[in-house]
Amino acid sequence: MSNITRALAEWARAVGPEFVSTRSESLAEAETATFATPQRIVAILQPGTLEEVQECVRVANRQNIPLYPISSGKNWGYGSRVPPSDNCALLDLRRLNHIVEFNEALGYVTVEPGVTQGQLYQFLRDKGSNLWMDATGSSPECSLIGNAMERGFGHTPMGDHFLHVCGLQVVLPNGEVIETGAARFPGSTTAATGRWGVGPSLDGLFSQSNFGIVTRLTIWLMPAPEAFEAFFFRCESADGLAPLIDTLRDLRMRDILRSSIHIANDYKVLGGIQQYPWEEMNGETPITPEKMAEFRQKLTFGHWNASGGLYGTTAQVKDAKRLLRKALADHKGALKFLSPKTLSFAKRYARAFKLLFRWDVSRTIELVEPVVGLMMGVPTTSTLESAYWRKRMKPPATADPDRDRCGLLWYAPMASAQGAEVERLTGLAQEILLRQGFEPMISLTMISQRAVCCVISISYDREVSGEDERANECHDELVARCSSEGLYPYRLGIRSMDQISQDSAYGQVLAGIKAALDPNGILAPGRYEVTSQRNRELIEA
Amino acid sequence: MSNITRALAEWARAVGPEFVSTRSESLAEAETATFATPQRIVAILQPGTLEEVQECVRVANRQNIPLYPISSGKNWGYGSRVPPSDNCALLDLRRLNHIVEFNEALGYVTVEPGVTQGQLYQFLRDKGSNLWMDATGSSPECSLIGNAMERGFGHTPMGDHFLHVCGLQVVLPNGEVIETGAARFPGSTTAATGRWGVGPSLDGLFSQSNFGIVTRLTIWLMPAPEAFEAFFFRCESADGLAPLIDTLRDLRMRDILRSSIHIANDYKVLGGIQQYPWEEMNGETPITPEKMAEFRQKLTFGHWNASGGLYGTTAQVKDAKRLLRKALADHKGALKFLSPKTLSFAKRYARAFKLLFRWDVSRTIELVEPVVGLMMGVPTTSTLESAYWRKRMKPPATADPDRDRCGLLWYAPMASAQGAEVERLTGLAQEILLRQGFEPMISLTMISQRAVCCVISISYDREVSGEDERANECHDELVARCSSEGLYPYRLGIRSMDQISQDSAYGQVLAGIKAALDPNGILAPGRYEVTSQRNRELIEA
Repeated sequence: MSNITRALAEWARAVGPEFVSTRSESLAEAETATFATPQRIVAILQPGTLEEVQECVRVANRQNIPLYPISSGKNWGYGSRVPPSDNCALLDLRRLNHIVEFNEALGYVTVEPGVTQGQLYQFLRDKGSNLWMDATGSSPECSLIGNAMERGFGHTPMGDHFLHVCGLQVVLPNGEVIETGAARFPGSTTAATGRWGVGPSLDGLFSQSNFGIVTRLTIWLMPAPEAFEAFFFRCESADGLAPLIDTLRDLRMRDILRSSIHIANDYKVLGGIQQYPWEEMNGETPITPEKMAEFRQKLTFGHWNASGGLYGTTAQVKDAKRLLRKALADHKGALKFLSPKTLSFAKRYARAFKLLFRWDVSRTIELVEPVVGLMMGVPTTSTLESAYWRKRMKPPATADPDRDRCGLLWYAPMASAQGAEVERLTGLAQEILLRQGFEPMISLTMISQRAVCCVISISYDREVSGEDERANECHDELVARCSSEGLYPYRLGIRSMDQISQDSAYGQVLAGIKAALDPNGILAPGRYEVTSQRNRELIEA
Repeated sequence: MSNITRALAEWARAVGPEFVSTRSESLAEAETATFATPQRIVAILQPGTLEEVQECVRVANRQNIPLYPISSGKNWGYGSRVPPSDNCALLDLRRLNHIVEFNEALGYVTVEPGVTQGQLYQFLRDKGSNLWMDATGSSPECSLIGNAMERGFGHTPMGDHFLHVCGLQVVLPNGEVIETGAARFPGSTTAATGRWGVGPSLDGLFSQSNFGIVTRLTIWLMPAPEAFEAFFFRCESADGLAPLIDTLRDLRMRDILRSSIHIANDYKVLGGIQQYPWEEMNGETPITPEKMAEFRQKLTFGHWNASGGLYGTTAQVKDAKRLLRKALADHKGALKFLSPKTLSFAKRYARAFKLLFRWDVSRTIELVEPVVGLMMGVPTTSTLESAYWRKRMKPPATADPDRDRCGLLWYAPMASAQGAEVERLTGLAQEILLRQGFEPMISLTMISQRAVCCVISISYDREVSGEDERANECHDELVARCSSEGLYPYRLGIRSMDQISQDSAYGQVLAGIKAALDPNGILAPGRYEVTSQRNRELIEA
């Protein structure tokens, strides 16, 4: 009897046969991402408890079958549910979906990996809570833990997700369980409120790694501010980006702006409003900068389009508006403010609104409303449709980019919050994508006072033959060029995990920790991991 | 020839004979802390460069002599320069004292371990920088890196020091060097601005640990706010603490207060104003609560005395004052605001000031001025004198608590920012210290929106026979009682490092990482480390 046969039998005993699947259809679905992925999956396991997760891991060690844990697996653009290495069993944690603890006064919630952002949002509404969560722009079906451990981000003052979690419960590759920070102590009163605990802080080890399976953590929430207002700045000239970044950095540094600010280029905005304009383009791709100028004109958006929230007391928000106006006064573009009240008013009376405020919101409301929602921690389904950008089909009621063979490859380099540097990065991306025949859809997120995450989307149709290969080529050039320019990513997709070199001492540290925690190498091989062989190739290249 | 003889010869070659000391006087000084410490030191090494640090480590491995690194060694109350284990060579990093990089626009400075907070403060003044640093209440001679890696804290919005550093350069126990976060990549543009880099984040591993020697890191700084004002709240009743904590937490959660708030009890304040009142006490100790009531009366301070800064634009600070007044309106006590301008005015015209504002500042100015300074990132020498509390001698011009045999033992448990919990902790501390014959000097720091660090000082005179033993006994009871109450520390002194138990799985993770990074166990044995033997004893106890 082979290892896999024995493993399947033991897993079935551990979690129940109905939660171990080897159906070829299910496996094929799980092996499908939004770009070409050769990796195969041997089985899908769905444990329902912590103990079942531990037992799955023990079986994997005994039978030497690697496990690839996913929370919700909605990692579109970075690899969806597909493991970076071949022949893993997928450990699907969706059944661990309990909100374990909630504290209104201290502002936190403790969740399992299957808890989605939509679920937490609904939970807070049902409780009549005054707390706001932070949501990512991805689907409401996304796992909170999955996103936090990938160090994803959202739109509120708590936008840097991994910076606002603590007390990780981790199943180690040997099947043991630990808790991190103050949570490791029996009966600790600060398990959900203390960031560091005492002694070495291990939290960071389990983010973007294959060192453990996070089965629970605490997420900090913010009280709804007394006042909130959204701002939108339309940057009219391409060279307005650099000064805009420098101005916004200054406002972030001075704590006048307190949340992550998002800046989308024209291509990104168009992709958010509609699918590819096949007719206007007579079926040709990509949309040239000249052609894009017409769309900007027609649909009234800028080269660069910044949006962010103002949070605080009524007086603080009023003052922030004044200072933002002042700071952007001599920038070429248009600054608009939008409060939730104004928005709902605008929706009801779009025409009257236009007369009153001389601002035609009708076109933009559709785009703007979910953005304002995100600034208030409201998950949205609207962004997912943009994955269908180059598809000839309309986005279905329940979008599924994997199933519908949407082509989406993301690369997310960082830059310091300096205009010149960000401009260099976006210029590089635009040049590469256009030359390779894709629209350079770029969003910039000022994740902190000092740093910007740049998400570059290579969006295409997997049905068009040759496109998968072209997209990969474009992605790989992007990785190589950015690295050579010192612009390194904040996060990796499964395609880029072995495309970034590391010096040998650093590699030895990671390898040493991996060997200590996972002697049999059964947990997510290749995840944020580059083999020494591959590393040599990269360095020599 | 013995290992130590060979090691000394090789170290002398590595750093120069003048930087290797075995003088018995020097060793005796370095072996002296502010409480009884039996550990002996075999030599003191003072490398001057990164390469010399690496060579010292390689020699230690070859000759199997453990190294104990210190930055400035001003770890008073927690063990000063004394290693937790016997027969280490002290690796004194004071000669690595360069400010390597400075960036005004992005608000950061990159420093070596020998750079003190006083040095950085002077550097910023000399540059005419608009940036503020965060300073701890300890001496200006304290190392910035030493404090950050111990996860110490200060008084500004950047009060949680380890939360505002990145890009660690670390000499590993095998002599290799790595950099963390984005700094690990050649030519990375975000080495000093990106918090996480990509892949597992290792920064936390090197804080409060013996996994590596931090030889450089980047510290983020804040722009001087447009407006700043200090507030002081004198809490008139002992049972006013709980509601005060709850009110301040609410203001912190709502981001109206943005910095760490400090709350000192009456004993702590008295110790900050003067030495032990031997005459009034007719030579008796400790000061009873009844007697303390008289001092509160005479010197006009409260049971609990809160202080913090308001930072932001003029409008923001104005609004914060309004909201703070409102929030504390029905608390029994007195709220005072003090701007730097008012303070310098008050200093010049203390009497006139009293007439104008009906507030006698003359007595408190001496105490208040350095506190306001700390809120603005100005290091102070004033707090150090409090280490001489029970001494009969006056604090000398250049205070040195180790040399002058001041008795000072600190224990720093954390609590969630909930009144009842904090009251339980302070009550416990007060009961234990008074019973053991010490003044319960307690300071509370609201380090974040959700957590409070409580620093309990056992202050005594090492010249008085039997006091060392009584202090240790008191400290150990404090550790045991707090742990059994679920109140665990944010930081450990060398006496408590093996007094806190851990579950075996967690211990195995730490041991595994230690073995991977330090196979010969030559780096700071016993630092934030409990042996499995000792751990069993603790669990059985």
